[in-house]
Amino acid sequence: MKSWLPIPVSSHFSLKNIPFGIISTASNAHHRPAVAVGEHVLDLSAFTSGAGFSKLAPELQSNTSVFAQPTLNAFAALGRPYHRAIRQYLQDVFREDTPYPELLKTNDTLRQTALVALADAQTHLPLSIGDYTDFFAGRNHAFNVGTLFRGPANALQPNYHHLPVAYHGRASSVVVSGTLLRRPWGQALPAPGATAPVFRPCARLDIELEMGMFVSRGNALGAPVAVADAEDSIFGYVLMNDWSARDIQQWEYVPLGPFNAKNFGTSISAWVVLADALEPFRTRGLENETPLQPYLQEDKTDNILDVQLEVSVTTAKGNTTKLTKTSSKNLLWSWPQMLAHHTISGCNLRAGDLFGSGTVSGFDAGTHGSFIEQTQGGKVTIKLEGGEERKFVEDGDTITITGWAGSVEGELVGFGECVGQILPAIARR
Amino acid sequence: MKSWLPIPVSSHFSLKNIPFGIISTASNAHHRPAVAVGEHVLDLSAFTSGAGFSKLAPELQSNTSVFAQPTLNAFAALGRPYHRAIRQYLQDVFREDTPYPELLKTNDTLRQTALVALADAQTHLPLSIGDYTDFFAGRNHAFNVGTLFRGPANALQPNYHHLPVAYHGRASSVVVSGTLLRRPWGQALPAPGATAPVFRPCARLDIELEMGMFVSRGNALGAPVAVADAEDSIFGYVLMNDWSARDIQQWEYVPLGPFNAKNFGTSISAWVVLADALEPFRTRGLENETPLQPYLQEDKTDNILDVQLEVSVTTAKGNTTKLTKTSSKNLLWSWPQMLAHHTISGCNLRAGDLFGSGTVSGFDAGTHGSFIEQTQGGKVTIKLEGGEERKFVEDGDTITITGWAGSVEGELVGFGECVGQILPAIARR
Repeated sequence: MKSWLPIPVSSHFSLKNIPFGIISTASNAHHRPAVAVGEHVLDLSAFTSGAGFSKLAPELQSNTSVFAQPTLNAFAALGRPYHRAIRQYLQDVFREDTPYPELLKTNDTLRQTALVALADAQTHLPLSIGDYTDFFAGRNHAFNVGTLFRGPANALQPNYHHLPVAYHGRASSVVVSGTLLRRPWGQALPAPGATAPVFRPCARLDIELEMGMFVSRGNALGAPVAVADAEDSIFGYVLMNDWSARDIQQWEYVPLGPFNAKNFGTSISAWVVLADALEPFRTRGLENETPLQPYLQEDKTDNILDVQLEVSVTTAKGNTTKLTKTSSKNLLWSWPQMLAHHTISGCNLRAGDLFGSGTVSGFDAGTHGSFIEQTQGGKVTIKLEGGEERKFVEDGDTITITGWAGSVEGELVGFGECVGQILPAIARR
Repeated sequence: MKSWLPIPVSSHFSLKNIPFGIISTASNAHHRPAVAVGEHVLDLSAFTSGAGFSKLAPELQSNTSVFAQPTLNAFAALGRPYHRAIRQYLQDVFREDTPYPELLKTNDTLRQTALVALADAQTHLPLSIGDYTDFFAGRNHAFNVGTLFRGPANALQPNYHHLPVAYHGRASSVVVSGTLLRRPWGQALPAPGATAPVFRPCARLDIELEMGMFVSRGNALGAPVAVADAEDSIFGYVLMNDWSARDIQQWEYVPLGPFNAKNFGTSISAWVVLADALEPFRTRGLENETPLQPYLQEDKTDNILDVQLEVSVTTAKGNTTKLTKTSSKNLLWSWPQMLAHHTISGCNLRAGDLFGSGTVSGFDAGTHGSFIEQTQGGKVTIKLEGGEERKFVEDGDTITITGWAGSVEGELVGFGECVGQILPAIARR
């Protein structure tokens, strides 16, 4: 699919993608919806005002008022058929052989108003997040970390293969890529076997490479979503770094789970890749030989998305080292299974709710989605470019996650980057 | 403090209280702020429109636009000095010797517009809840339940006296008193020692008697709130029933904490009692002999609120039995300590965030805030009125929590009721 707009063949934002985000610009501070196309973004607020949707099916036009909103929640809530129609329409607008050249291709005025260089668009949190739930579906990660604490025989808990384990996360501190985060203070045991904690800046600051999923249409309290219907409740996907303070977590998490170890910040990429855009990249996930309860049984076997994922660290000295290369197919549970399990209790989801997949890891060196796996709990040093070393994240380190599906030049469906830098802990007495 | 409005001496909503809520009425479906006074509510939207705040200090009048909002979030965000000023002003309006009789006392028109019978006011969730955090500060409950699982010597985890243990809860399913809830389905082990779960409606549905606290002004990400400043971030309090599916929880909660066992519904009372209204009812909480980190140390020793709490069950047959009589002083941690701990990581709070205290229990029979404590894990039967029995909550049961501070007739500061009825699980194949 060629475009009249120059799009680099390596761009994550090919016409096969059309991811949605929220932008502002130097000349217009209002937050407004946009799609990323190559090295540009199309301001959907300006595009709507400039009659850009005038060739859209008439019955769909009134809903384009959602593009005047400061978040994508209203758009998400319209449901997957609407997202599909808008994506296809925008692909038509940008195609080399667009049937509507007058809308944008040959419309100098609207191009100047609505097309913005990607580099000039400030991105913001794409949706207002009602609730954030973090799953634990990366079985290799669960196994690797469980092995560190309990040995391989007891690495996975008895429930692990029966249900997608999850906990409620903190929605307020989910931040968009590029947001700076401070190293958290907290209580931690000073040494193995200690019985009293010390209060200090986190000494084992880690990352978790995850995929994120945004809910489109919610469900009423008491009305579970069937696994077969769950795809219709998915808006799209982002990359996620679920920053984790391992030493704080180790001390606080019994018996109710992680709390301050996680709530100081969770970074997500700015552009939401629609569920439809990733539809061609389904594959089989990790094998689960455990018989599943009916509410978790799926008809299709290609129920897991195959997104290539990479993590790199850039130190304060400017050295960049690639740490991880893996794929999102390293998940035991599909998003529909997570969604069906989340609602089987009757829990209500709302448009804009965010799910995290859990850490995505392989088993081999260079495929781990966290430092704690790569360093075997802090025992092994990671060698970085420039002679630097790491066991965990240090002050000034920038972690960059990137991810994309596909391998055909000019047709990548990518996420761009999810970037976060850790600032030193605040000064305290 | 006498009122020109007849207020029963046993009312929870004396002039010493002035709790805030959100109402609608048969003639006006809009959700709008109100205060409860005796057996009436004052519709603050109508009161504002009718110049009811015309005697308020001029610099405070423009902010009364918050009373046109459908939630109390904007009012909460104005901060505690503003809440104090409005409460005092409304006390002045309702006093027998009001300095402003023309505003309401002798203003037939506005009385007819703005004063509504409590019974005619439909109450709604008072604030839009960004995040809900459930603490575990009821040490007696933690000890009682820990004893059931691990014996008294290991009942409390090593971290328990060092920090206020908490987990992130589910905000979407917090509902206002009176909302019907369905018994959740879920996975549970069919018997002790079983290794594979069954899928069934919850068989051990429980309650948790808690206090809830709403945050007024939030903090920026990365900027903790000092314990000495935390009172200024408190809007007010409600009663809470943190419904719990014990059998689902037992199977799912390792290693990341409760999830579906809690997210099918959390009930709160409709009227938010302002922090100022409870200020006279401070007392000492449970003794904590563990040295605390400086960020949790408070100067004052009367840091815990003394609210009398009662729980009763009304069965489908109509028999009502009082189950519990205790006090909110059975908490180890104060609200400022919880707030300081929550933010010490840098976590940002927002106006409308909700904290739960954790289950409030004593040790003696009739003081337990959950069935699992009263029945010693389901081993002992509770005898109800009318010859009925319970081990856990059954279909059709209505749980009513009530709570109030003070004992002087005509001066009670109460919460009204937090009511919830459990409907049968939905039919599934």
